Amino acid sequence: MIDCDVHNTWGSVDELRPYIAPAFREWFDQGEVPGSRPAFPAAHRPWLHPEDFKRADADPPDGGNAGSDYGLMRRQLLDRYGIEHAVLTGDQPIEVSTLANPYYAQALASAYNDYLVDVWLPRDARLKGSLVVAPQDPEGAAREIRRLGGHPDIVQVLVSTGSQRPYGDPFYHPIWDACAEVRLPFAAHLGGNAGVNATPTGCGPPTFFWEAHALLCETGMGHLASVIAHGVFEKWPSARFVLIECGIAWVPALLWRLDEDYRALRKETPWLQRLPSEYAHDHVRLSTQPLEQPRDRRAMWPALADIGAQDMLMFASDYPHWDFDDPTFLRLPKDWRAPVMDTNARELYGLPARAPGEAVTGGSAA
Amino acid sequence: MIDCDVHNTWGSVDELRPYIAPAFREWFDQGEVPGSRPAFPAAHRPWLHPEDFKRADADPPDGGNAGSDYGLMRRQLLDRYGIEHAVLTGDQPIEVSTLANPYYAQALASAYNDYLVDVWLPRDARLKGSLVVAPQDPEGAAREIRRLGGHPDIVQVLVSTGSQRPYGDPFYHPIWDACAEVRLPFAAHLGGNAGVNATPTGCGPPTFFWEAHALLCETGMGHLASVIAHGVFEKWPSARFVLIECGIAWVPALLWRLDEDYRALRKETPWLQRLPSEYAHDHVRLSTQPLEQPRDRRAMWPALADIGAQDMLMFASDYPHWDFDDPTFLRLPKDWRAPVMDTNARELYGLPARAPGEAVTGGSAA
Repeated sequence: MIDCDVHNTWGSVDELRPYIAPAFREWFDQGEVPGSRPAFPAAHRPWLHPEDFKRADADPPDGGNAGSDYGLMRRQLLDRYGIEHAVLTGDQPIEVSTLANPYYAQALASAYNDYLVDVWLPRDARLKGSLVVAPQDPEGAAREIRRLGGHPDIVQVLVSTGSQRPYGDPFYHPIWDACAEVRLPFAAHLGGNAGVNATPTGCGPPTFFWEAHALLCETGMGHLASVIAHGVFEKWPSARFVLIECGIAWVPALLWRLDEDYRALRKETPWLQRLPSEYAHDHVRLSTQPLEQPRDRRAMWPALADIGAQDMLMFASDYPHWDFDDPTFLRLPKDWRAPVMDTNARELYGLPARAPGEAVTGGSAA
Repeated sequence: MIDCDVHNTWGSVDELRPYIAPAFREWFDQGEVPGSRPAFPAAHRPWLHPEDFKRADADPPDGGNAGSDYGLMRRQLLDRYGIEHAVLTGDQPIEVSTLANPYYAQALASAYNDYLVDVWLPRDARLKGSLVVAPQDPEGAAREIRRLGGHPDIVQVLVSTGSQRPYGDPFYHPIWDACAEVRLPFAAHLGGNAGVNATPTGCGPPTFFWEAHALLCETGMGHLASVIAHGVFEKWPSARFVLIECGIAWVPALLWRLDEDYRALRKETPWLQRLPSEYAHDHVRLSTQPLEQPRDRRAMWPALADIGAQDMLMFASDYPHWDFDDPTFLRLPKDWRAPVMDTNARELYGLPARAPGEAVTGGSAA
């Protein structure tokens, strides 16, 4: 089994101090004014979680942030469920996308990346890393991708779904160009819905956290449409786009709509050679968490089968966050277990093949 | 058969001149400066349709706008398909929501409403009217609803899905209050995605018309979540919310997400007594057009059945617009034909019962 969304973090933000660029160190040390110290800087979210973003049982016994205790992560996740590879996605770092100062945002992302490579990746061969970049500075992000993207345990470039524009926009093409050069997928994880980023959902901001959280799949919808419409997959045929934590049940409806509208009005985008759903099938991957729960659990799969989602979905737990998906409770159509729990991520991230005869763990028949 | 989205309009905007409030008449006559004259004022859309918003065959032979020729509407739609009732939704009037001046916007809406009552509704007993209001002026909208909402052939209050805030927001409660008083559903039709309204989709504006059009279901998603979360259906138990032209295939995914998040975090909205999907089933109705087209046409219905959509959907053609849905091509699950083509709209709009033994027309088995 491969888990495509595991949030690692520091016990105290002071652990990042050695990695922050000297020019920004005094600012990092002083913290936000006014504001708390020590903390990783990010714009404040407009929607406050009424409980906690973390699982209550994931706080390290010795203090520090949930996701900072490797031993606990091993016991609660890696060993417990027999996870062969876990793709670390950090925790607060993707929120650098919310900061107005793109240079400081990129310096913070770089500090996290060096910390990831120094501290986390050597801990366990099962851990794979995501290189966080600040997308509001596409040229700086491209430099960071070229600086560290060749590391053997870095498997993707990561940003928040919160953004200033949808990610197919030419503004972001330097990032796509660098990803193609180092042959890494470009991944967007739910988050960054604050600060300089556009309102993540349409028609003005929702009011409540639960309302907003349900609607945040709209961030994935916009990026998915954009990367297809702008021809990212024609310009960079090796490009792969990964949506993490945006859910999956909305994807068929969107692809049906895109196909229909593209068929009628394709002259707007003459560079496209295929239907939107065909690009999505070959170039887009989605993590399963939070997996939608119909009343009848069989109700969700016919639509997903219609777009070939068995080739697009990848299991993710979202450990140690509040809406963690336990792989032993995950119900999938029988034929989907191996691709979704294992093979799709293995292929996307270039992980070694399963040993002959080795069973896929996790998930059960829907 | 009942058609819930038929766009009537004027041949020339000069036909509205007698209905515009005297104080605004000189401005109406002069038109936009700089700009074209005569035209119905609205903010310009950022996405330009690369073909035309109208069916090519719907232009009246004697000139004027598509949808302005009642004889043609009768031949091309009402008589041809045996439509028993057609709910007129106007054409440009909902775009008054895009104007910065709420008083002029409301005056334009009122002029259209008087024209509708004077000119269109007496033409044919099959025609039912939608009362257009300017939602950026909720108190003015409420006055307009109380002024004309009692007309026997007015069946709903109508705004654009493009808006400044989602429609559950307390800002709009005067509109809900007036709707409850005159016992009319509150309907939002796709449009108004310009001017003072918020960007209709998340994460910044999409680029192309076809991309934006596919994503515009996000406007429906935001309003649907908002009217449920803010407790509109607890505060006004008779309230009904109608989404027109937002599509339907995305609805199950959103309701599953809302139910899940509400279950976990309901303390944010203690006024709610039921699951979001339960409120939606009893209080929300959706027009079918543009009906999404899976590769396998059976793929869409299991998810919709899971939320009880056979009680929520209502047929609409969108005549005379470019993406018109022909009722003879519409495939529905066998048991869904009568409710979707007829009964759901009949109940919502308080239309007389079908004569005993009278068959439902339109639609065929999926």
